[in-house]
Amino acid sequence: MAGARYALAASRAHPPRATISKEPSPGNHLQNEASSRRSSALSFRLVVLVSGSGTNLQALLDAASDDAYGATVVAVGADRDDIEGLARAGRAGVPTFVERVGDHSTREEWDESLAERIAGHRPDLVVSAGFMKILGPRVLAAFPVVNTHPALLPSFPGAHAVRDALAYGVRVTGCTVHLVDAGVDTGPVIAQEAVPVREGDDEESLHERIKTVERGLLVEMVGRMAREGWTTTGRTVRLGTARAAGQAAAARRPAPVAEPAPAQDRTQGTTSGRTTK
Amino acid sequence: MAGARYALAASRAHPPRATISKEPSPGNHLQNEASSRRSSALSFRLVVLVSGSGTNLQALLDAASDDAYGATVVAVGADRDDIEGLARAGRAGVPTFVERVGDHSTREEWDESLAERIAGHRPDLVVSAGFMKILGPRVLAAFPVVNTHPALLPSFPGAHAVRDALAYGVRVTGCTVHLVDAGVDTGPVIAQEAVPVREGDDEESLHERIKTVERGLLVEMVGRMAREGWTTTGRTVRLGTARAAGQAAAARRPAPVAEPAPAQDRTQGTTSGRTTK
Repeated sequence: MAGARYALAASRAHPPRATISKEPSPGNHLQNEASSRRSSALSFRLVVLVSGSGTNLQALLDAASDDAYGATVVAVGADRDDIEGLARAGRAGVPTFVERVGDHSTREEWDESLAERIAGHRPDLVVSAGFMKILGPRVLAAFPVVNTHPALLPSFPGAHAVRDALAYGVRVTGCTVHLVDAGVDTGPVIAQEAVPVREGDDEESLHERIKTVERGLLVEMVGRMAREGWTTTGRTVRLGTARAAGQAAAARRPAPVAEPAPAQDRTQGTTSGRTTK
Repeated sequence: MAGARYALAASRAHPPRATISKEPSPGNHLQNEASSRRSSALSFRLVVLVSGSGTNLQALLDAASDDAYGATVVAVGADRDDIEGLARAGRAGVPTFVERVGDHSTREEWDESLAERIAGHRPDLVVSAGFMKILGPRVLAAFPVVNTHPALLPSFPGAHAVRDALAYGVRVTGCTVHLVDAGVDTGPVIAQEAVPVREGDDEESLHERIKTVERGLLVEMVGRMAREGWTTTGRTVRLGTARAAGQAAAARRPAPVAEPAPAQDRTQGTTSGRTTK
């Protein structure tokens, strides 16, 4: 009953990018393995969408500065100009783009333009990191999108999650990292973490504590999705299972990225034309 | 907005029963204090309502066998015969009563009868411990009622909380101890505790883990309500504040129990005619 309401269509597998050693070097075997993992993972491409200060973006940029993280922020998109999120991207040398809803005659047109701008950066995953617009069907059909929410969904969806949690009087709230679907904060859950409400908490103090946990969880989960792949079956997202269970399914369907990397790119340690660090 | 939807009327204070030393003894001060706390608390009266195996009831009976707990199960009520919960009460020497909905021509009549049966045991608090009927307005107006729910409310109210949580695909669920109001699992939250969902969990395995946490939280909270009192303001339940903030309010309104204990009872270490252990 409740299950049927949330059941999605098919099972999807997203295998991780293959990790290939660029220059197999002689000597200590274990050390070489570790060093090759750090230096030559075929990096997983992230497009991050922001609307504000971009603290989650910064956490992703910081994490991705270590090659071992396995993912790279290849572009930052926004729905408005002059925000700190875009400035952070600029300082990190990451290309940016802005698609304002107001510059389009319809929301559908905006959705289409945004999908095209994102596609230009061939992401493996789109991260909605404080992006304050509901994404449209074109974007959602083209890319897997991850979002964070400052509550333990399905409790307190929407734009005022922390305020609503305090008004209800919960003693435990938290945050959710989830895949985005057509609903508002209704997509399949990837991870959740509890945050206790403290005596005397107000919206600001509680939100700050949640944000800290949320940032860590988002960075951890995006990294694991990049390194381990994931499989979505109905509402269940499994990390690290793509290699085993998802390989066959992945072979049957095109990857979420525009074109698969040609075979010679793989042996050169590049993917989709982008050289790995 | 969301806050207004849940706002209740007034602030209510429930001071704890006074702890009075029966025989102040000389000697080691700290030791005497501890021993007087154990032996002479004026015990807080619980009526526990059950519909099944009564594992939460058993946990309350076990806890209350230690005088330091501060509460005593004075009666166990049920909505059906031949259940293990009633047998447990019998073995513990606790009086029982049964009020079947089917024995009454209307639900209102049942509510009235149940309220009368409960009132006969002059409870300070009614604990709905796996009681599978929605309590009516007579019972709820007459006594504060505590319930436990195997989810982090407001997520997954109703009779299939664990199944619904698994169907949604949450990674964190838990349990809620709350005051009962006229809605289904909508009353003010007293305490919540998170329980992680494990890979491979089914309804049974997850429910078992939640029940263990739930039992501990219920026993802890009922004990604290008894020993420390509580104040309800809107949707906020504060434990341990009745002594400070609630004293004046408590003086202005009758206690939830039928009649206050006469003064001489207090000095004799009894309350409402019942001798403390």
